[in-house]
Amino acid sequence: MSSAALLRAMLDVEQAWLDALVTAGVAPAAARVEVTSLAGAGDVATLAQAAVATGTPVSGLVALLRERAESRGEVEAARWLHRGLTSQDVVDTALVLCLREAAARIARALDEQVASLAHLVRAHVSTPMLGRTLTQAATPTTFGLVASGWLAAVLDAADDLAAATRRGWPIQAGGAVGTSAALLELCAGERDRAAAVLAHAADALELRLVTPWHTVRTPITRAGDALVRCADAWGLLAGDVLLLGSTDVGEVTEADGGGSSTMPHKSNPVRATLLRRLALTAPGLASTLHVAAGQQASQRAPGAWHAEAAVLADLARQVAAGAELATALVGSLEIHPDVMRAHLDATAGVDSEQRVMAGLVGRSPGGAEGYLGLAEHACAQILDRATAPEVPS
Amino acid sequence: MSSAALLRAMLDVEQAWLDALVTAGVAPAAARVEVTSLAGAGDVATLAQAAVATGTPVSGLVALLRERAESRGEVEAARWLHRGLTSQDVVDTALVLCLREAAARIARALDEQVASLAHLVRAHVSTPMLGRTLTQAATPTTFGLVASGWLAAVLDAADDLAAATRRGWPIQAGGAVGTSAALLELCAGERDRAAAVLAHAADALELRLVTPWHTVRTPITRAGDALVRCADAWGLLAGDVLLLGSTDVGEVTEADGGGSSTMPHKSNPVRATLLRRLALTAPGLASTLHVAAGQQASQRAPGAWHAEAAVLADLARQVAAGAELATALVGSLEIHPDVMRAHLDATAGVDSEQRVMAGLVGRSPGGAEGYLGLAEHACAQILDRATAPEVPS
Amino acid sequence: MSSAALLRAMLDVEQAWLDALVTAGVAPAAARVEVTSLAGAGDVATLAQAAVATGTPVSGLVALLRERAESRGEVEAARWLHRGLTSQDVVDTALVLCLREAAARIARALDEQVASLAHLVRAHVSTPMLGRTLTQAATPTTFGLVASGWLAAVLDAADDLAAATRRGWPIQAGGAVGTSAALLELCAGERDRAAAVLAHAADALELRLVTPWHTVRTPITRAGDALVRCADAWGLLAGDVLLLGSTDVGEVTEADGGGSSTMPHKSNPVRATLLRRLALTAPGLASTLHVAAGQQASQRAPGAWHAEAAVLADLARQVAAGAELATALVGSLEIHPDVMRAHLDATAGVDSEQRVMAGLVGRSPGGAEGYLGLAEHACAQILDRATAPEVPS
Amino acid sequence: MSSAALLRAMLDVEQAWLDALVTAGVAPAAARVEVTSLAGAGDVATLAQAAVATGTPVSGLVALLRERAESRGEVEAARWLHRGLTSQDVVDTALVLCLREAAARIARALDEQVASLAHLVRAHVSTPMLGRTLTQAATPTTFGLVASGWLAAVLDAADDLAAATRRGWPIQAGGAVGTSAALLELCAGERDRAAAVLAHAADALELRLVTPWHTVRTPITRAGDALVRCADAWGLLAGDVLLLGSTDVGEVTEADGGGSSTMPHKSNPVRATLLRRLALTAPGLASTLHVAAGQQASQRAPGAWHAEAAVLADLARQVAAGAELATALVGSLEIHPDVMRAHLDATAGVDSEQRVMAGLVGRSPGGAEGYLGLAEHACAQILDRATAPEVPS
Repeated sequence: MSSAALLRAMLDVEQAWLDALVTAGVAPAAARVEVTSLAGAGDVATLAQAAVATGTPVSGLVALLRERAESRGEVEAARWLHRGLTSQDVVDTALVLCLREAAARIARALDEQVASLAHLVRAHVSTPMLGRTLTQAATPTTFGLVASGWLAAVLDAADDLAAATRRGWPIQAGGAVGTSAALLELCAGERDRAAAVLAHAADALELRLVTPWHTVRTPITRAGDALVRCADAWGLLAGDVLLLGSTDVGEVTEADGGGSSTMPHKSNPVRATLLRRLALTAPGLASTLHVAAGQQASQRAPGAWHAEAAVLADLARQVAAGAELATALVGSLEIHPDVMRAHLDATAGVDSEQRVMAGLVGRSPGGAEGYLGLAEHACAQILDRATAPEVPS
Repeated sequence: MSSAALLRAMLDVEQAWLDALVTAGVAPAAARVEVTSLAGAGDVATLAQAAVATGTPVSGLVALLRERAESRGEVEAARWLHRGLTSQDVVDTALVLCLREAAARIARALDEQVASLAHLVRAHVSTPMLGRTLTQAATPTTFGLVASGWLAAVLDAADDLAAATRRGWPIQAGGAVGTSAALLELCAGERDRAAAVLAHAADALELRLVTPWHTVRTPITRAGDALVRCADAWGLLAGDVLLLGSTDVGEVTEADGGGSSTMPHKSNPVRATLLRRLALTAPGLASTLHVAAGQQASQRAPGAWHAEAAVLADLARQVAAGAELATALVGSLEIHPDVMRAHLDATAGVDSEQRVMAGLVGRSPGGAEGYLGLAEHACAQILDRATAPEVPS
Repeated sequence: MSSAALLRAMLDVEQAWLDALVTAGVAPAAARVEVTSLAGAGDVATLAQAAVATGTPVSGLVALLRERAESRGEVEAARWLHRGLTSQDVVDTALVLCLREAAARIARALDEQVASLAHLVRAHVSTPMLGRTLTQAATPTTFGLVASGWLAAVLDAADDLAAATRRGWPIQAGGAVGTSAALLELCAGERDRAAAVLAHAADALELRLVTPWHTVRTPITRAGDALVRCADAWGLLAGDVLLLGSTDVGEVTEADGGGSSTMPHKSNPVRATLLRRLALTAPGLASTLHVAAGQQASQRAPGAWHAEAAVLADLARQVAAGAELATALVGSLEIHPDVMRAHLDATAGVDSEQRVMAGLVGRSPGGAEGYLGLAEHACAQILDRATAPEVPS
Repeated sequence: MSSAALLRAMLDVEQAWLDALVTAGVAPAAARVEVTSLAGAGDVATLAQAAVATGTPVSGLVALLRERAESRGEVEAARWLHRGLTSQDVVDTALVLCLREAAARIARALDEQVASLAHLVRAHVSTPMLGRTLTQAATPTTFGLVASGWLAAVLDAADDLAAATRRGWPIQAGGAVGTSAALLELCAGERDRAAAVLAHAADALELRLVTPWHTVRTPITRAGDALVRCADAWGLLAGDVLLLGSTDVGEVTEADGGGSSTMPHKSNPVRATLLRRLALTAPGLASTLHVAAGQQASQRAPGAWHAEAAVLADLARQVAAGAELATALVGSLEIHPDVMRAHLDATAGVDSEQRVMAGLVGRSPGGAEGYLGLAEHACAQILDRATAPEVPS
């Protein structure tokens, strides 16, 4: 989701569109050109500057592409490039292409986390530890159940991301006001040919052909919400690691932590720290996407549309980085059952609820070991989900 | 989602649980009592006060219920009420019950809006109007296409809400730390009996029996996101009505608008105004739910869990009120095709793009009427979705 | 900031305005009426309903007041009530009145907290404890310094709230579009008389007379930001209490905590928990006020203005409740220097930085006691601020 | 606020600190080195990578600096660099340095805007136009009053930014846990010498010497709030320009607008559009700073501290860009009094309020010209503020 990647995606969109115009016989064969060779990472700064003058990088990009095509003698290409598209088509579709790639990468990371966490749950399904609620010792639980909560959260995030992907990522191609009027004019009014251009472009980009969504920003908010839910899931994981890994608890260690710039003895839980950072910064970004989606009006809202791209790119970038951190964090955890056991044994009152319950039914309460309820069963159910993932509805 | 409704839902939860304990043979038949008759709307203020002292209204409620049961001589009921549950079980499940009802009501309103908007699209599929982008006259469009954007937005919102509902609303019943240890103790260690209690309770409340989600807050964020997407959709509708209905445009009127406290001639677009308000206030609330979901840790996070209920209740209340406003707004719209036509005719440059495109292919440009592209086709596709709603994936 | 309080404030505004009209000789003496007796808490529900139809409660309120005045034979009062004002004048000024009261209450609470915290700092200026960074044992600090951080945060919040108050709370009285044209017309074009009415009204309400701020929403965002900063300050306090008061640390206790609905042994840190809740929910509300302030346009923006009142009232209500909780929390803290000392003594590596530093200058490192740096000096400086508060600039 | 600027600022901090150590006689004269020559923009990418491993760029930077110093034979410099500081000291102080520069630049832009807007108000103090509320024609106003609203908003923003600056930007220099213990150890326990080091460093950076604010994040939230208030102010300006400059209104033109990538006739209000974008994206960022400030705990909170720097840098960068846009926008406005007049004359009902008021006092209503109330007076008052700016309290 870097500026260079977004530029590359915009070039892919212009390429697919130009190819589609030629393939459908709208533009002449002589208009074919390798668009993606006309510009590159070196143009990012120039285009960013141009974007300040027109509000999007597209006008500048199209001018640049036409100029370079002409200087190569590709007059027809210069003439036909971008014809039938509007700036929003290019930006939205390029954003979708980048999002798709980010989502695929994040999905792979989530899958790895599911595998690692399932392993962790299985290994600790019978590892008892102190349950803590509102910072206070509560009743016993197992580390397997704690980890199965992380697993469930990650599975939920994966389901939500998969739902966005399964639906298919949409192309945006409606022209100035979403009517595709320019395209139809270029097709001399032949609807079938216009439809063919749209279909070719969508196919080339492997996107779903849908009605223009210039003002209906659901694809953006759905993507944003799916991303922030990943951050939420890792926030839970990070929260527990930070708590259990603190010097005062010490039941879990994040191995290979970060060093301090001044205290040689410290090993900081860096990955968990950075994931908690993500859980704090992601919601504000996703929220801005909703604010923008709700301030649409006319065929292109000034500001509301413009607010999305950088925010969504930032969010995707942060979540993609978080995906790697989360995989690394899960892989770096060292669990200390002996410390867990010691805390459980040393905590007064941890059996107070058990005594009350046993008293109600006239039993004599067993020890903490006998007060783990259905924890094992819950772990098994979540593991089932992990191995045969629920088809999200 | 009023305080009284939440209390009522909490009573329903305690009732279902007590019944389940008795039905499964855990509690004696003498423990049966009509829990919902023990407290009511009159207790809301007292319980709210108690909630400040303990952080949730449940401790206070359980004490009240036991006291009243005892004063009616229902000693066994007093003894068995709430046994095996923790406060979070009651609050979360009650919140889910209220959400389910709110979601159903909102879904019905969205359905009505779909029907009305489909009608509007059909009536204006050929009504030309000026397209506007970034506040400036762009190229022609049709009012049918504008309204089909509203329809698409509402269909998206309905799909997302349906996805939350189709999955089934989950019961929360894991006891102090999510292990159901208290329940199993009450069942003298018999797992089948404990499972039966859980199944009975879920059935009675018509909720889905799932593993405890004390710290995995996906049901909360999913609900919040589905709600805010309704607000987004109506924000688009409101934005267009406010623009098109302004004195300066006058292409659409919100009939029966609100009067001014001082200017007799004014008719304010009150419904659109209040829906735009909703589009501004809802994202901040949904965002807080994500922040809270990402700050979980231990078996109950202090503050993060507590932050959800009031925020989600507020959001659901606002969106439910918005649902009624949106239905009323759609039903109150008066469309003025003559004004639309007059603006289209009077706007210089509206055919500038058309001229360029026609020039490229050596055609002579037709008038605005001939530059509507695939607008009709797009309307038809969205209408198809409205009549045979996509099974959301 | 309840609905009843807001209504009462709206009545105060109408009262002050009517009195001003009469005092300045614009309205006849016969128009005097005790406006505040014409309506009351019993009308809240009716007016709330009316607000849905017109977007604000004012139209309904004015109609009600006129009707009641007439039914009492107060024809002139009915005739003159609200003349020269617009709905926004009444709502904005009433909101300001309620805010002023909430701010005063919060300021008093902050003062109490300053006194208690100063006491706490003084008592523990030499109480050594383990410093923790990123969850890991770092180097020694003192509990006095920790508490002086809370004190500094509370002093900052008090300064920011005082700045808002010192500036003077503004009246809103510009009529329909902020020109006061209706008022001037009622004054038959006499500017001095119009100015007198405005001055009388502002005086009666003890508000600052300023140019209308119908679209310049700085007073709203300033209030919102000052409120959220209180929440931030208590968030730090709560965060430390939750950490230090956890079963695993136990260096500080929140006395008289809340009970669990099922675990007899638990004493939950309820006040800290609810303050952390506030720190999570307040920022989203304050943010919505900024979003609304930035979406102003024309002489009254549809939705953006309407979004403020309920959000700000909610924020003020939450922060005012937080103020009481914070005072109670500070008053309920029990400090355990022995536990602090034990942790300090037991932690390996706590002197690792000290060794490095001593090595650099060829000293032999002292113990933890000798590695408290300027902690005492920092405490003294913050205590100085507490006793002779900085005049905030 | 680019990555390079932040690196440069970090080097400035290390330089000032090393110089202070030498000047105060703590480090030997041989430790002096030009720190700022040891690293530069070319190291940004490497340090960013290193930051992922340790959570901040400082550990990597210090290692790099020491290595380069050593390779230059500056053994004493390598030995003494960064001694007494912790990572947070460097990051926080560097952030403050960048913020100070951004704030100064923004303040200059605001001053220019004040001058231009004052000119605009003066020029149009008697230019009547239609007032619009809730999208509907209301009563007359003047363009001077509209512009004086923009001016008041900009003055408010300038006041709030000045307040942050006048207070003085604070240095952060407390070492690992805010006690300055490492520094005092290096000073062999001599408090005066430690104080001298702190004073030297603060002086060199022209920062205010304050008690460490490692967990008391008021400087961060104050800066964030001051920045978002600039965005709010420009949002109002942009909102009016977008409304009044729309094809349908045409009372104001943003000259030299941006071109469309496909419609030759369009001139888009690009600056207003990008300022509205800012007004939509800034609040979410400022809000995240409050969320982070409220989640502090211990001597350095994992995640909460880390969340600030990038968010604040992004916010400052966006607002600084907005400052230039706003200056350009104000300078590019073309006002069309004839169009304003035409709309005023053509609008039915614009005198309805006037008739009612005149009727009440038995006058015959004048025309729109005579119904401008105290508009001129309000303009004069705001102009007074512009020329003799209020000393903000």
